Amino acid sequence: MEFSLSPSEIIEIIQASTTRGSTTEMLHGIASLQAAHPGELSFLGNSKYKPEVAATAASIVLLPLDYVGEPKPNQLFLLLEKPSLGLARLCGRLEQMLWPKPTPGIHTTAVIAPDAQIPASATIGPLCVIESGAVIGERTHVQAQAFIGRKARIGADCWLKSGVKIATECVLGNRVLIHDGAVIGADGFGYEFVAGRHQKVPQVGRVVIHDDVEIGANATLDRARFSETVIGEGTKIDNLVQVGHNVVVGKHCLLCAQVGFAGSTTLEDYVVIGGQAGIAGHITIGRGCKIDGQTGVNSSLEPGSSVKGSPCLPYSVEQRINVVRKRLPELFKRVDALEEALNKPSANA
Amino acid sequence: MEFSLSPSEIIEIIQASTTRGSTTEMLHGIASLQAAHPGELSFLGNSKYKPEVAATAASIVLLPLDYVGEPKPNQLFLLLEKPSLGLARLCGRLEQMLWPKPTPGIHTTAVIAPDAQIPASATIGPLCVIESGAVIGERTHVQAQAFIGRKARIGADCWLKSGVKIATECVLGNRVLIHDGAVIGADGFGYEFVAGRHQKVPQVGRVVIHDDVEIGANATLDRARFSETVIGEGTKIDNLVQVGHNVVVGKHCLLCAQVGFAGSTTLEDYVVIGGQAGIAGHITIGRGCKIDGQTGVNSSLEPGSSVKGSPCLPYSVEQRINVVRKRLPELFKRVDALEEALNKPSANA
Amino acid sequence: MEFSLSPSEIIEIIQASTTRGSTTEMLHGIASLQAAHPGELSFLGNSKYKPEVAATAASIVLLPLDYVGEPKPNQLFLLLEKPSLGLARLCGRLEQMLWPKPTPGIHTTAVIAPDAQIPASATIGPLCVIESGAVIGERTHVQAQAFIGRKARIGADCWLKSGVKIATECVLGNRVLIHDGAVIGADGFGYEFVAGRHQKVPQVGRVVIHDDVEIGANATLDRARFSETVIGEGTKIDNLVQVGHNVVVGKHCLLCAQVGFAGSTTLEDYVVIGGQAGIAGHITIGRGCKIDGQTGVNSSLEPGSSVKGSPCLPYSVEQRINVVRKRLPELFKRVDALEEALNKPSANA
Repeated sequence: MEFSLSPSEIIEIIQASTTRGSTTEMLHGIASLQAAHPGELSFLGNSKYKPEVAATAASIVLLPLDYVGEPKPNQLFLLLEKPSLGLARLCGRLEQMLWPKPTPGIHTTAVIAPDAQIPASATIGPLCVIESGAVIGERTHVQAQAFIGRKARIGADCWLKSGVKIATECVLGNRVLIHDGAVIGADGFGYEFVAGRHQKVPQVGRVVIHDDVEIGANATLDRARFSETVIGEGTKIDNLVQVGHNVVVGKHCLLCAQVGFAGSTTLEDYVVIGGQAGIAGHITIGRGCKIDGQTGVNSSLEPGSSVKGSPCLPYSVEQRINVVRKRLPELFKRVDALEEALNKPSANA
Repeated sequence: MEFSLSPSEIIEIIQASTTRGSTTEMLHGIASLQAAHPGELSFLGNSKYKPEVAATAASIVLLPLDYVGEPKPNQLFLLLEKPSLGLARLCGRLEQMLWPKPTPGIHTTAVIAPDAQIPASATIGPLCVIESGAVIGERTHVQAQAFIGRKARIGADCWLKSGVKIATECVLGNRVLIHDGAVIGADGFGYEFVAGRHQKVPQVGRVVIHDDVEIGANATLDRARFSETVIGEGTKIDNLVQVGHNVVVGKHCLLCAQVGFAGSTTLEDYVVIGGQAGIAGHITIGRGCKIDGQTGVNSSLEPGSSVKGSPCLPYSVEQRINVVRKRLPELFKRVDALEEALNKPSANA
Repeated sequence: MEFSLSPSEIIEIIQASTTRGSTTEMLHGIASLQAAHPGELSFLGNSKYKPEVAATAASIVLLPLDYVGEPKPNQLFLLLEKPSLGLARLCGRLEQMLWPKPTPGIHTTAVIAPDAQIPASATIGPLCVIESGAVIGERTHVQAQAFIGRKARIGADCWLKSGVKIATECVLGNRVLIHDGAVIGADGFGYEFVAGRHQKVPQVGRVVIHDDVEIGANATLDRARFSETVIGEGTKIDNLVQVGHNVVVGKHCLLCAQVGFAGSTTLEDYVVIGGQAGIAGHITIGRGCKIDGQTGVNSSLEPGSSVKGSPCLPYSVEQRINVVRKRLPELFKRVDALEEALNKPSANA
């Protein structure tokens, strides 16, 4: 992002234990030691990059307390126990600058049903639609062009980015962050095959998202058949993830991009799923399971399982298979040779 | 969804053959036998759950005609030949309540080209854009913030949910349901490699969607290079599915979430494709094929084929491979041992 | 698309070397030799279809110079060195008709910050939102309902289709084409696990897209943690692709639909990635690599590598494995038999 901070402002943000040297440069960027230019800040996050510190052109470098070298002219070293913590402090400050608190109020171009409940502390951006009976929480920020359906309920301190769609009667807790274009509450995919046609099974449930959930751009979470599709507290869902109807995701799970769920599956807490993995319907994934990227899970997993492959096997088994599978054509030849050797009369002569 | 129905209203909707017991509770939810609370309706859909009926707290329970137990105090049993049919009747009624018929008319904030044709029976929601020459059918409902491009033609009784985009000249039949954020008619992905650069091949065809098709949230269907990308009558497409240019999908197919097609492939009728499967370009998938989730299909399939794996094999072959593949590392060791045994002079001594 | 061109207009567009025969039909479509009707144009693109020319009902047929047959009555043959080039000329003209140059100007319903910079040559469609400090280039076309965030900078001659979202401070070069619903600059997926909860790592970088890039419908490109996610000049990205934070894509790459990247990976120039492939984080894919559809790449690839499978192997190795793997169950039986034969006393008798 674009910023401009003086060395003294940086010192105040970073809260370093010691400083070494000084710089007159205004700071306007963060970069790796190798890539940094004057006017940028860098950091030693991993001791293997220590040799790069002496060569960096960064104007400010965050370093661990035990770092012994001296800065160049017009270069400032900030020493602190954990440089990564100092970097986090700076990024936290930048985040506030990048996304400043919006002014509360309803944009004149938003289309708001007369009976929607919107507190004075909320911000409704331009060209949003908020339908009848919807309830918005305190300080919640609904960005441009978002859609909140009839009787949907959004908690406090949420942030719905541009073009987010929350369909009829869906429910969000507090501090839920939903990225642009995500769709919460489209119909589940359910049909009965009758007389040669797929007849729609009504999807009349809803989606319930608990506190502190984050949902990625263009992700889709379907409403339940007649009860609830649930995302547990603190779970983080990446872009383009598909959550089918009646799926129940536990607390503090991580679902990476493009993961897909068929319907009616339950995830217990602290499950981590790598990108593009697919989870079948009507199964249970136990607490703390780790599912590798592109994995296919077709049956329930015990708590603490770590799996990989499609269809999946225990991680270590799949890894061992992957070590040998490249030699599979050779194995066929070896078995051919063994058979030939055994069948040769001379072999046993 | 939120509802409140009296026991007598429920009885009328369910059309039970017999009732047993009675309840004074208003009904406001549907749940499984085990999860149901007073004020909720439950059902015995599968006889293996029969033992749960006696313990359920549901105020109303749908049961098969031959069920012999008695309800608890303030509990009503509704007996009918197929409890699932009764449940479907209730969900159908709830669906009408969840999505009440919109009032016909054009919202004042919609931006409509003067020469767009919109019948008085249609509903155009707030902040929609309908471009020049577009034609909307009778009773069609275009929800908030949807986009209908130039000369696009939408049939009768369609429902386009929030943020749906129908690009220039695309055509929809009757009773087509498109979920939020789906994009119909973006350019196909076609380039010629000329002098080190990918030069765009014009994509001037269109997408034609036949009657009774349903398309999921944030799905993308690309326009043809110069003819038509086609979705056949009655086909149902789930969320985040990608249909490349010139793909022709037959009638009554089911394409689960995150399925992807390269271009110019033909699906005959009644094909079923599991989630995240990928279909190569320029092939034909025969009538009634079943393609498992995460499968990769690289060549044409005969009608009635059932395939699995990437690249796919017949379902039963892939299943047999999956049974043994976990023992692949062990197989290598066994072959090592065989070779050693054969090469030992003593083995043949 | 719908068009109507006279034979003489077609002749002028195609620039044929010779004509043979004539037609009075107005031309309104393009189709294959076999599918064409009167009033449509067809072409012989591949000599294996030569026998179909005599039977085609097309009113105009593009043919190579050495084609010897005669047209039917009311049929016109246009002969030129490369019929495909003539077809490209026609499609190029149709593309201009399908997407006529929009009238410059800002639609009255667009919501534009007072300090956004929009040149008189640009077109801003209905219901767009352009936030404070955003800069739009000359002749750029922002279609209906698009969103351009604070301080975003869009180059000249870009085309952003309906519902595209460009988040705060992201940067586009010139002639960038972004299809409907794509999201540029949502937060990267980064958390630290602290005290049992996933704590968000601020994502304060941006996305930088260079000249002549095309991005597909509903694709998602995340902003960097604190530097830049980069798409190099001339790269083409298909629908529903996910590009994680800090990914750097080189020049002239092709990323097919539903490809996904974890964060911080680098693609050098001219990389081609098939649909649904997944690329792990923190690796480098060398110049000119070819990655097959559904492939999983977990480690860096040397320039020019061609890989397939999940986890990937060199293309030819994976192909050889795929040839034999269907016989894996049989191989187990053969090894069983070998072991039995070796262990039989009689075998060595």
